[in-house]
Amino acid sequence: MHALIAIDSFKNSITSIQANQLVARRFEAHGLATTQVAIADGGEGTVAAWLANHAGGQSITAQTVDLAQQPLEATYGYFAAEKLAVIEVAAASGIQFVTEQLTPLATNTYGTGLLIKDAIKHGARKIILGLGGSGTVDGGAGILRALGYRFLDADGNELAMIGADLGKVATIETQQVLPQLADVTFISAADVTNPLTGTNGAARIFGPQKGLPAAQIDAHDAALAHYMTIASGQVSAHAGDGAAGGIGFALRYFLHAQVQSGFQLLADVSQLKAKVAQADLVISGEGQVDDQSFMGKVPIQLSQMAQAADKPCYLLVGRQKGTNATFAEQGVTAVLPIVDQVMTLDQAMAQGPANLERMADRLARIISRTAR
Amino acid sequence: MHALIAIDSFKNSITSIQANQLVARRFEAHGLATTQVAIADGGEGTVAAWLANHAGGQSITAQTVDLAQQPLEATYGYFAAEKLAVIEVAAASGIQFVTEQLTPLATNTYGTGLLIKDAIKHGARKIILGLGGSGTVDGGAGILRALGYRFLDADGNELAMIGADLGKVATIETQQVLPQLADVTFISAADVTNPLTGTNGAARIFGPQKGLPAAQIDAHDAALAHYMTIASGQVSAHAGDGAAGGIGFALRYFLHAQVQSGFQLLADVSQLKAKVAQADLVISGEGQVDDQSFMGKVPIQLSQMAQAADKPCYLLVGRQKGTNATFAEQGVTAVLPIVDQVMTLDQAMAQGPANLERMADRLARIISRTAR
Repeated sequence: MHALIAIDSFKNSITSIQANQLVARRFEAHGLATTQVAIADGGEGTVAAWLANHAGGQSITAQTVDLAQQPLEATYGYFAAEKLAVIEVAAASGIQFVTEQLTPLATNTYGTGLLIKDAIKHGARKIILGLGGSGTVDGGAGILRALGYRFLDADGNELAMIGADLGKVATIETQQVLPQLADVTFISAADVTNPLTGTNGAARIFGPQKGLPAAQIDAHDAALAHYMTIASGQVSAHAGDGAAGGIGFALRYFLHAQVQSGFQLLADVSQLKAKVAQADLVISGEGQVDDQSFMGKVPIQLSQMAQAADKPCYLLVGRQKGTNATFAEQGVTAVLPIVDQVMTLDQAMAQGPANLERMADRLARIISRTAR
Repeated sequence: MHALIAIDSFKNSITSIQANQLVARRFEAHGLATTQVAIADGGEGTVAAWLANHAGGQSITAQTVDLAQQPLEATYGYFAAEKLAVIEVAAASGIQFVTEQLTPLATNTYGTGLLIKDAIKHGARKIILGLGGSGTVDGGAGILRALGYRFLDADGNELAMIGADLGKVATIETQQVLPQLADVTFISAADVTNPLTGTNGAARIFGPQKGLPAAQIDAHDAALAHYMTIASGQVSAHAGDGAAGGIGFALRYFLHAQVQSGFQLLADVSQLKAKVAQADLVISGEGQVDDQSFMGKVPIQLSQMAQAADKPCYLLVGRQKGTNATFAEQGVTAVLPIVDQVMTLDQAMAQGPANLERMADRLARIISRTAR
């Protein structure tokens, strides 16, 4: 039997590539052949997955800044033959940098903008920006500043465009915008369809988990609306504008980006569909699966692919929310949580790789014995 | 496919019969046929398992006393055609009655003796006594008192034969022993091979878990040796004498009991071996499996039976201690702990049935899909 193994990361515990390797080792120990495909949803791990799946890439380390505007070395993927760069917002503007002081009111995506600028100077003419895992709600203004856009207040003073500045913008100057931008194609790799503002907007839906104080959420939503009005002349609800704290808006409106599913881009480049068709079973998983949020989740997209090809699909997960039956409707044969004894969340996170390997071993034993 | 389901109890959480039913329901939901066999190791659940497996039995409720010598209604199984009674020590002398005051120094097995007497008066001429789950370390003296043996101190005063009295015995009188005893065959259903006294004796090995104070263990071991010497003229090490706080000794020496494996007795009466041979796979399990104590554990005896018949065997357990590979050597295809998310021990116990059913559902889905 041949297993296709494509597991998303268990955040802060196991990377996609590490998870695939751990599981493959157990399956091979029980006589099952394996094919590994690194996957990601556009968040952390996207660059590594591209480098693993697509030939001819290199990892480039660039100087940028973090959310505190402190110097930071970050990496992106570069594919010279296609002049293609793959950049993660999480690398320089990720939620891992958020602190009590560094809330979305005090930060912006300037560091991500510096990485984009570096990639363009390196020769990139197509940029895939993975929008997952951001810690900002700046409407993408930090990125725009790094690329040469200038944001002025009513007195003509230039703004840093941290979150707290969004409501002060009066004019946006474009004279100093990087000239190569006109030749660069942008792709937003995102699975989020929220608009920039309003009830389902970036401040209300994603602000709290990024540390935006509850008392500031309405005001910040209004500030985003003001910023959008100055930029585009109106407040409008475009699906995806709210991704990554509003980067979706900046990419669409200023940089004319297309929005594509981060998973689908990787699935295409790794020929995932053909590999599913060739396998006897599919293994996926991630830190948490939740039957309330099937839309766009990587393991569910994979299970649906398996279902279409009439292959069994197993999810190894940190946490399963929802019944077995609900997952079965999405093509999941069984969800197997890797927590296998009484333990705390901290223990589960720390012991993630060992827990994953133990459960994969059980699954491999059951499958290989039953198929005998 | 046909699954033989024979799961031991998850102590204080799920009975054997309940576990079998929950698992069978999930297997049948996924198109797998099932046969259920209630099993037990001689402890709690032994009577219920006998009544489930052996035709012609009835449940008899008798008046007895608990460890505090308070009135208690307890049940045993009676098979009139064979004049056979099946009695659990746990029913009247179980560890569930132990408190800070009711340690083995203050208690005895008198309540179990009353049940034996009731069964004999009911007509029983063969008695299987399940020795698991006792809360006493009285060398079985309480049972003997209930059957008419009298224990006197050096001044000729009768002793109650609680644990603290063992060291005071000077003579044992047999004039008032129940006359029918001579016609009764006793079987000790036990899987413990410890002797009554010494390093591996009842006080040292089982005393602590029954609440015997650490400072009293050596003295209590000496008291058991004294009691054995008065009874039998010497201190000797017979395998099994230490079972159930020394009931093993009283049954062997005074009542000429044979020792048999509690599991094996049930396996015979339920024709378990033939049922394993007819099944495609075997499901067992219990509250905890531990690769340090394979000897005599019900699920492992079953997995060895499955191995001999070349059938896959799966254990659904509350806790797995030991590696998958070690269990595989005993014929266990996979151990599946039913704890499937971060939870406390209290939560795991309270949610036991739901956790078991969920994990059984996963296993049934994997097996039925793989066998398709």
